[in-house]
Amino acid sequence: MNTRIINGSLCFFLLLSSLIADVYAKTATSHDFSALKEQYYKDHPGKGKYKDHWEPIEIQKYWNPVDFYQPPPSVPQMEVNREQCVECHQALTPGAYHAWRKSTHANLDKIRKLNPANVRHYKKEKLAEIEANLVELGILKKGKELEDVSCIDCHGSVGAQSIRHDKELVMPDRVACGTCHQGEFAEAEAEKQQEWPQQQWSKGHPSHAMDWKANVENAVWAAMAEREVAQGCDMCHYQQNKCDGCHTRHTFSAAEARQPEACATCHNGADHNEYENFMLSKHGTVYQTQGKKRWNFEVPLKDALTKGGYTAPTCQYCHFEFEGEFSHNLVRKVRWAFNPTPAIADNLDHPWFEERKEAWVNSCAACHSASFSKAYLDTADKGTIQGLAVEQEAKKVVQALYDDGLLVGQATNRPAPPAPEKDAPGGFFQLFWAKGNNPSRVERLHVDMWEHDLIKHYKGLFHVNPGGFTYTEGWSELMRGYSEIMDENTRLRENTDKPAKNTAAALDSENFVDNGIRYSLGAVLMVVGITLIRRRKTNH
Amino acid sequence: MNTRIINGSLCFFLLLSSLIADVYAKTATSHDFSALKEQYYKDHPGKGKYKDHWEPIEIQKYWNPVDFYQPPPSVPQMEVNREQCVECHQALTPGAYHAWRKSTHANLDKIRKLNPANVRHYKKEKLAEIEANLVELGILKKGKELEDVSCIDCHGSVGAQSIRHDKELVMPDRVACGTCHQGEFAEAEAEKQQEWPQQQWSKGHPSHAMDWKANVENAVWAAMAEREVAQGCDMCHYQQNKCDGCHTRHTFSAAEARQPEACATCHNGADHNEYENFMLSKHGTVYQTQGKKRWNFEVPLKDALTKGGYTAPTCQYCHFEFEGEFSHNLVRKVRWAFNPTPAIADNLDHPWFEERKEAWVNSCAACHSASFSKAYLDTADKGTIQGLAVEQEAKKVVQALYDDGLLVGQATNRPAPPAPEKDAPGGFFQLFWAKGNNPSRVERLHVDMWEHDLIKHYKGLFHVNPGGFTYTEGWSELMRGYSEIMDENTRLRENTDKPAKNTAAALDSENFVDNGIRYSLGAVLMVVGITLIRRRKTNH
Amino acid sequence: MNTRIINGSLCFFLLLSSLIADVYAKTATSHDFSALKEQYYKDHPGKGKYKDHWEPIEIQKYWNPVDFYQPPPSVPQMEVNREQCVECHQALTPGAYHAWRKSTHANLDKIRKLNPANVRHYKKEKLAEIEANLVELGILKKGKELEDVSCIDCHGSVGAQSIRHDKELVMPDRVACGTCHQGEFAEAEAEKQQEWPQQQWSKGHPSHAMDWKANVENAVWAAMAEREVAQGCDMCHYQQNKCDGCHTRHTFSAAEARQPEACATCHNGADHNEYENFMLSKHGTVYQTQGKKRWNFEVPLKDALTKGGYTAPTCQYCHFEFEGEFSHNLVRKVRWAFNPTPAIADNLDHPWFEERKEAWVNSCAACHSASFSKAYLDTADKGTIQGLAVEQEAKKVVQALYDDGLLVGQATNRPAPPAPEKDAPGGFFQLFWAKGNNPSRVERLHVDMWEHDLIKHYKGLFHVNPGGFTYTEGWSELMRGYSEIMDENTRLRENTDKPAKNTAAALDSENFVDNGIRYSLGAVLMVVGITLIRRRKTNH
Repeated sequence: MNTRIINGSLCFFLLLSSLIADVYAKTATSHDFSALKEQYYKDHPGKGKYKDHWEPIEIQKYWNPVDFYQPPPSVPQMEVNREQCVECHQALTPGAYHAWRKSTHANLDKIRKLNPANVRHYKKEKLAEIEANLVELGILKKGKELEDVSCIDCHGSVGAQSIRHDKELVMPDRVACGTCHQGEFAEAEAEKQQEWPQQQWSKGHPSHAMDWKANVENAVWAAMAEREVAQGCDMCHYQQNKCDGCHTRHTFSAAEARQPEACATCHNGADHNEYENFMLSKHGTVYQTQGKKRWNFEVPLKDALTKGGYTAPTCQYCHFEFEGEFSHNLVRKVRWAFNPTPAIADNLDHPWFEERKEAWVNSCAACHSASFSKAYLDTADKGTIQGLAVEQEAKKVVQALYDDGLLVGQATNRPAPPAPEKDAPGGFFQLFWAKGNNPSRVERLHVDMWEHDLIKHYKGLFHVNPGGFTYTEGWSELMRGYSEIMDENTRLRENTDKPAKNTAAALDSENFVDNGIRYSLGAVLMVVGITLIRRRKTNH
Repeated sequence: MNTRIINGSLCFFLLLSSLIADVYAKTATSHDFSALKEQYYKDHPGKGKYKDHWEPIEIQKYWNPVDFYQPPPSVPQMEVNREQCVECHQALTPGAYHAWRKSTHANLDKIRKLNPANVRHYKKEKLAEIEANLVELGILKKGKELEDVSCIDCHGSVGAQSIRHDKELVMPDRVACGTCHQGEFAEAEAEKQQEWPQQQWSKGHPSHAMDWKANVENAVWAAMAEREVAQGCDMCHYQQNKCDGCHTRHTFSAAEARQPEACATCHNGADHNEYENFMLSKHGTVYQTQGKKRWNFEVPLKDALTKGGYTAPTCQYCHFEFEGEFSHNLVRKVRWAFNPTPAIADNLDHPWFEERKEAWVNSCAACHSASFSKAYLDTADKGTIQGLAVEQEAKKVVQALYDDGLLVGQATNRPAPPAPEKDAPGGFFQLFWAKGNNPSRVERLHVDMWEHDLIKHYKGLFHVNPGGFTYTEGWSELMRGYSEIMDENTRLRENTDKPAKNTAAALDSENFVDNGIRYSLGAVLMVVGITLIRRRKTNH
Repeated sequence: MNTRIINGSLCFFLLLSSLIADVYAKTATSHDFSALKEQYYKDHPGKGKYKDHWEPIEIQKYWNPVDFYQPPPSVPQMEVNREQCVECHQALTPGAYHAWRKSTHANLDKIRKLNPANVRHYKKEKLAEIEANLVELGILKKGKELEDVSCIDCHGSVGAQSIRHDKELVMPDRVACGTCHQGEFAEAEAEKQQEWPQQQWSKGHPSHAMDWKANVENAVWAAMAEREVAQGCDMCHYQQNKCDGCHTRHTFSAAEARQPEACATCHNGADHNEYENFMLSKHGTVYQTQGKKRWNFEVPLKDALTKGGYTAPTCQYCHFEFEGEFSHNLVRKVRWAFNPTPAIADNLDHPWFEERKEAWVNSCAACHSASFSKAYLDTADKGTIQGLAVEQEAKKVVQALYDDGLLVGQATNRPAPPAPEKDAPGGFFQLFWAKGNNPSRVERLHVDMWEHDLIKHYKGLFHVNPGGFTYTEGWSELMRGYSEIMDENTRLRENTDKPAKNTAAALDSENFVDNGIRYSLGAVLMVVGITLIRRRKTNH
């Protein structure tokens, strides 16, 4: 009894758990859905603001079906019914058929028979909600059960009995899935509401919900003559258009989408190596040694630690969570977002950032103490700012070379990038377009620094992968880029009347022993912070 | 009934399925086997055409046992029988013993007891065939059952009761495995029949069946003084010699060899990153999230989608398949093969290439629509050609520097590579040999472009890994290589009487805005194709 | 009978198996433990010899708790008992709670009920030993059973009934774990006894047992202003401090720690890519295709091949083993250790190295023949020396540029690194610190050669990953680095009065065809060895 009383006084964090609610239980109403659907199409950019600069190629009708898809001439010129779709495609595309055949969509009755002890029982409730939604939309008759979700429901329209194969065939978009899965659709669309306090990003960016817009309104993407290469970007940047980026067709499995590998196709590599960082972190190795065999991915995320048996987080466990709730809105704790910039570094003490950091502390505190969580997040912030400082110094050097006209071939062989892209030293476009001496070597070095190395540094820090921000990626790579740029700078300025501004002579008033950090106000404040922390530690 | 009639008219692809036959049921006859065996040894190059330039080191007797293996002096100088092999090696090499002990080879009776409902039942039929083969070869008495496949059968000869350990011990080659597994041996050897319509590759290349020949007849491999490094190539290039590259000794599991990781040791990395591309593609992430737990790799590939439960393809599912049949001949759908070259790019409209592309469309169509499949394959072809164009432009720049004698150290410090290798700018040998200023920096940049970046670009495209051909590997890396080479070109020509031919001045008649594509006839035709497609799309 | 007699004469290796003993059965006595504990703290460097150059930041109290941890002010200012810890943390940190709840620590009774047939039965014996240890230490009353291992046992002291949360809370160190797990603690600490015959490394280095000392006594680590980046090194270099690097809290699973991924967080990447090499080797692909599903990681390593069903080795199987015994002392077979150097290459014929190589032959011979094992290990040694030769030649070129004052910016813009680091061309510090033209480009190229490429080359060879030492990493990367350095050398010496010493002219007495190997006595002896082997092979 005494124990209980003391617990009562101890557990000031306990309140948090009461905030945990099954957001899957929240269903958008039919009215909401109509508004949501309308807004979805209104927000969708189609070909976007650079529409006059590019034309879709054939494959793009699959990445953005609403704008580009037409049934191919090879399909039967006739009316086909529910059963015919299935029967014929069982023979035509057996892989797709069998994936669907084993899926929940084809086995709704199994869901209805789940007993409450089953970890998948929540699907029974969800099915009831979906049926209620469909009744409200007039698609399902009240009192009737949905038989199955078949080819025609997604590739025609929900509940259709037959369609003209050559005229009415569609590739499903977010709205198609959202017609039944209204709650998830609403959650996912909520990402568009994200607003940055100092307009570091425009409203709703970056997010899955606006990734197609980000894609088509990227100047170099629209400018590239090589449309077949450019469409490679679409292969990830289509989450705004469709839901099968995570719930692969034709299984559409929630359990699949809860596993880290589900994120891997898009979140790996040069400038978004979250997957590698996770897998190599302690979190990831526990997932690999324990999780792959023992954790139950059929349980909803809210039950992961209890019924699911998770002993480490997954991508989904941290990024779907916000203040104890799980949702398809993944940007509620975003702070540094896609890449570290001074505009973020200088404003981390703004309440918007502070509150989000607090939300992260709470997330980590599911397993770690709040002290540990805060200490690590502070470390990651400061380490990120340290990487940014290196990149910013290099940036100035490259900009100065450009301003002084000293880049290799700058005067003789620097074609402009194709419209709508515009020339700039070290521009993003230089990763995807090159001609003559645009970019020059030193520029590409800088692009790789800010777009690859700095991002990897930051992602390595926040995903707790030590090699990802010290050695293999991150800091040591930033050091290499910096050295290469300084070397180029010294050479390019040799025998010119524009000597480098960062030589020992020019910088003689600076202390080379204790350098490496020279930058904006925010960073200076940070340094003061570190000093204070260190002093506090010394007194321990 | 109506349904059935309509299906009949709809399912024009259905015919395809009737083509699916179990090639495992086809057994080479004893006569075929003798001929095959004879041909196998006749085709085998031994030390190859550069035989005078290199001597095998000790370890190579394991990579090519037929030519180099002799029992080591440490083995017992005596006759040993079947049981002795097993008993002694149970103590000597317990790992090998236990792997075998659990294998099918040691448990033939379990195979005989499989009932038809078991997915492994096909092994019972296979065992019967093998026994029939052995009877025909006079190794097994008619009516007798094979007891087991034991040490002595593979390391002596099939059915041997005893061998002289110090004189008759062998390391098994393809023929040793093929003596029992005649059908698979015949399939695998069939790769040698591949002929390229415009001699892009010599007959039978590239293939597993001739990979040892490719290895030893590669000039730099034979030329390298560092034999211990060179033999590293053998560690993959031995499939022509042995079967345990895929069916690891001493389990020799078909189920193991059906999993993507079985291909990983050889198909990863610098110039053959198929494994990474697969694993990061949607195909690979489905394999990782669903397949590793739920798919049954004991089922033969032909039953993968049905009994095996595959919901995505594996390496094996696509590359063993040809027109609905599965075989150990993996080159039947090869088109771009090892690396993209103009000789392939310019001939894609030749029926040989067209038919193979059609075969690929059919493979993809197991799960995807034919329209999708064709659209994607067209995209991959065109994207590959776009990458090739960048590399070819860079190649000309490097060649011109060489022709003009402007490479760093070209006149003062350029030793020739050792025989039988010959000097050339940007040659393959420069990946494995370097001395003084051979290669110069700009050459190595070009080798890396054609041998790493372009290949990765192409492999990324065809394995549907977006980051593999836009960003992390492929296109963006080609852009970097191109920029570096252009930068070098401008510098190396500064203050010489040989100005660059691709400066803005020299190229003033070209439109820099819409450039990036300048190449061979094939590519021009392709551009026309794109234009036509775009026009068609615009009318939608 | 005859069989048995022959076996008797054949199995001269059999003796080896009798050496296999369960080291887990060996328990340090209470007296040993006290001495061990005392010695542990005596050996521990705390802040190390550069203590005046750095101050710990907040997060470091978790990487080295004994020196830096203090309970945070936010914890309850009160006495808490065993039950309260658990009850409150079930709510506060449910992830940590549930991990522990399912662990052996929370389920000792289940261990006691294991019957001898269970592969985990060895844990029952271990529990009895632990209880005996605790009785001897006066922590457990004789005849009493340990109820569980709860929060308070590790975060207070073993057997404590209550602690002052704000004063007595600790983060456990090696001694805390070692109090119960005395045998494992003793094994792990034994790494400190390693002495190198020619002082290639100082006593006890490199090892897990002294990795914190290696960390804090690394000059650039102490010198870096960016403490948040530097602490990233601590995130692996803390094994000297704690045991949860392998046995992740709060499961502390032996089965987890036996899986290769458990090593991945630290043993991946730039200069220790053992994990990648293993996973891509045949060993690793067998683990991935067969092991992840079928091997039983609950069995102790000594039973791995039999009861565990391993058909290939894991990291742990080879590195914990020495002469048939398994122990937490992982350095008993170390030869090349962290990186190849002439001081090792030149002494491989010393008995210390020869005996260790023999121990490796025995390890490999668990599955492979001794002839194969020896042939491969010889190959790996020679291949490593070949890589070292390339790096050493490049090193001389960079050193000469430095000595001649020809590095870019050497006279005008070369700040010294911060104390306690000292300037040197191509120094380790240049991976982590850069300013102005320190390092210059050619230096960083060399650092990457010796610290990344050469190490990867060596690790690729010894972990049997062909692409890891021929192509993707290793040799081909060394060739690139060499070419780049030679290119720089030629350029930097152009128009100076200090021409390169390795030009064709300067080297005209050397044969460029058969070059590539010029180095120390040890290597020359090696070449003679190769020649002899080749001659022997030719006579076959």
